[in-house]
Amino acid sequence: MLQNREISRATLGRIPSYLQYLRALPPEIQNISATTIAKELGLGEVQVRKDLSCISGAGKPKIGYNAAGLADSLETYLSCENGGAVIVGAGKLGRALLDYSGFAGYGLDILAAFDQAVTEEEKSDMGKRILPMDSLEAFCRTQPVQIGIIAVPAGEAQRVCSRLVENHIRAIWSFAPCSLTVPPDIAIQYENMGLALAHLKIQIK
Amino acid sequence: MLQNREISRATLGRIPSYLQYLRALPPEIQNISATTIAKELGLGEVQVRKDLSCISGAGKPKIGYNAAGLADSLETYLSCENGGAVIVGAGKLGRALLDYSGFAGYGLDILAAFDQAVTEEEKSDMGKRILPMDSLEAFCRTQPVQIGIIAVPAGEAQRVCSRLVENHIRAIWSFAPCSLTVPPDIAIQYENMGLALAHLKIQIK
Repeated sequence: MLQNREISRATLGRIPSYLQYLRALPPEIQNISATTIAKELGLGEVQVRKDLSCISGAGKPKIGYNAAGLADSLETYLSCENGGAVIVGAGKLGRALLDYSGFAGYGLDILAAFDQAVTEEEKSDMGKRILPMDSLEAFCRTQPVQIGIIAVPAGEAQRVCSRLVENHIRAIWSFAPCSLTVPPDIAIQYENMGLALAHLKIQIK
Repeated sequence: MLQNREISRATLGRIPSYLQYLRALPPEIQNISATTIAKELGLGEVQVRKDLSCISGAGKPKIGYNAAGLADSLETYLSCENGGAVIVGAGKLGRALLDYSGFAGYGLDILAAFDQAVTEEEKSDMGKRILPMDSLEAFCRTQPVQIGIIAVPAGEAQRVCSRLVENHIRAIWSFAPCSLTVPPDIAIQYENMGLALAHLKIQIK
């Protein structure tokens, strides 16, 4: 799994920019220095060195990093070595998340969505699978599912959460506006849209 | 406007719980102590006292707060005294946000969504207005719009952002995966779904 779990959210947030920049370099550029990357992305050089050394070790003195090798390390770091995510709840929010294009840049794969109102397999606009709720167990047995995303109303969220945990999900990302109980070895993160918007509102000058 | 801009995100996050609890009290309960509120909501008493005193001053010794008065203060604090929000981009995410029920508990009002692909006014499933992009100016002149929510692709986001600022929006909440430039007196907050999910992933034990 991941070599270094202590990587900060800020570092993680910069990886896609590094990756995007490196992948866009012309093929004749084989080596690249942290100094150049920092300059091109408008970041501090110390920060860039620190970020890259967390993931890919230090560059060679006077030469820097092999550009393709560095990009591969970053992509490996981000990619779903241990599986992707499923969404439970294929309402508006669930479907928006299922087809959201911004996950791929972070090496995150949404495998499918599940909904109790769905009786036969459907496809989202982007061709992703939307499955009946009762196929969750079989899916989780056969697919590398690591993360469960909860996009159901608050009243159903705990039941869904427990069912995901029973299916060996390792982490829960919940959009339901309520607290959930999970075993201590399961990571949980809440996305509170109301709170985020309220927080912006109090910042208004 | 708001009396205290220094209120923490954590305090703000608890206001809806206080409000929900107070509004559900039987009418014969006129006064309520911070101790009771803390106990009922499973929070620390010191924390509750601190939260409430930020917004509504201290309760009376031995009596506590007038329950209805406290609820009113909290609601006023949360409510959109200076107007609501508009969404630009009525794709899946924009429509999910437009009909999201979790904003109301934070006193936030989404007034309408705008989209360049919309030629005539539409209604969302929840009856909210979805308007053509070229009616944004007239809407902002006549409605109390304070916050602009950007739910368009990255390539269109800066143009939309500038147009919102020209229309006297005071704060921007962007779901587009890119940085935006705004004047220094405009508050801006980014919602990076990919980053949030990536962060959860690295927490997996």
